[in-house]
Amino acid sequence: MAGVEAIEQLTHQLSRLPGIGRKTAQRLAFHIVSMPEEEVRELAVAIFNGKKKVHFCPVCGNLTDMETCSVCSDPSRDQSIVCVVKDARDVNAMERIRDYNGLYHVLGGVISPMDGVGPDDIRIRELMSRLGSGSIKEVVLATNPDVEGEATASYISRLIKPMGIRVTRIAHGVPVGGELEYTDEITLMRAFQGRREV
Amino acid sequence: MAGVEAIEQLTHQLSRLPGIGRKTAQRLAFHIVSMPEEEVRELAVAIFNGKKKVHFCPVCGNLTDMETCSVCSDPSRDQSIVCVVKDARDVNAMERIRDYNGLYHVLGGVISPMDGVGPDDIRIRELMSRLGSGSIKEVVLATNPDVEGEATASYISRLIKPMGIRVTRIAHGVPVGGELEYTDEITLMRAFQGRREV
Repeated sequence: MAGVEAIEQLTHQLSRLPGIGRKTAQRLAFHIVSMPEEEVRELAVAIFNGKKKVHFCPVCGNLTDMETCSVCSDPSRDQSIVCVVKDARDVNAMERIRDYNGLYHVLGGVISPMDGVGPDDIRIRELMSRLGSGSIKEVVLATNPDVEGEATASYISRLIKPMGIRVTRIAHGVPVGGELEYTDEITLMRAFQGRREV
Repeated sequence: MAGVEAIEQLTHQLSRLPGIGRKTAQRLAFHIVSMPEEEVRELAVAIFNGKKKVHFCPVCGNLTDMETCSVCSDPSRDQSIVCVVKDARDVNAMERIRDYNGLYHVLGGVISPMDGVGPDDIRIRELMSRLGSGSIKEVVLATNPDVEGEATASYISRLIKPMGIRVTRIAHGVPVGGELEYTDEITLMRAFQGRREV
């Protein structure tokens, strides 16, 4: 706000967050200065602690505030299957389906020559070294169904197949609840190609 | 994120902000834990300072980090005209037009029986006591052109008119750049009623 340095500063900091434009940042800033002091303190502390306590799991690359993440440190998880995802948010999405009981490997990105990200810039080497132990029987490639995700999945599958480990890719198709009429051609093509006997 | 208390906590705090749903809060939380520590510290400090340093101007109710706000403490502003607005954000909007050089009075809300807000719950009494000093010649009612804003403006104008002070209301009409075809009936009616000779 014109003339109020502390609000200007707060607006500036908030507008650096993804998806928060100048107007939204200003609206949030005005809201924050009107919040009870205790709530503001809780917010600031949560932000600071979030950063301070959370780090990457040294095994799978997932986010955790423990030594290794909750999945890696859970002995009841199936140690023979690893689901490879782009980032920790995808682990979250997979865990929500409550149907997968294996391990994860978080790449921390996907191969994207346009953005200067090559195979050595994401955690592929770490994946290969985990596979070297011999206990993993299947790798599920669950990168996004976009150009970079496909390229990354195909790159990794070429590396793993010679090791005799089963490599699978999540299915692409018409989303549940979706309508054929509004489905783009590529998704529909994938849905057709992936058809199964009923 | 499932199992990471610090991220859950951060997501919860962020989702309490207006316009930030659970999904956006989670996206922001993941972004924040991936930010450089220095940037996170800056964000947390800006939030905390925003609250700590900013308070209401004792004269007009605007937000400020000084004793009185930048408008009230500026002797070059026209002390004979007061623009009455709902909240500090509206002061900001008015200042952007760079055409108004008078003072403000921030009500901190509008009369809204539905929400249990009566005339005594907003800063009307403070406005009346400012007017009592005799130096103010015109009050511009710039509350929003909605039901509550209109009701508040009409309530205040009834209080002030007997004092012999000029009371005006900002014009309602078709927005500049707007099209008649897409203008709602009430705005169009106001635009018609407010027509002026050219």
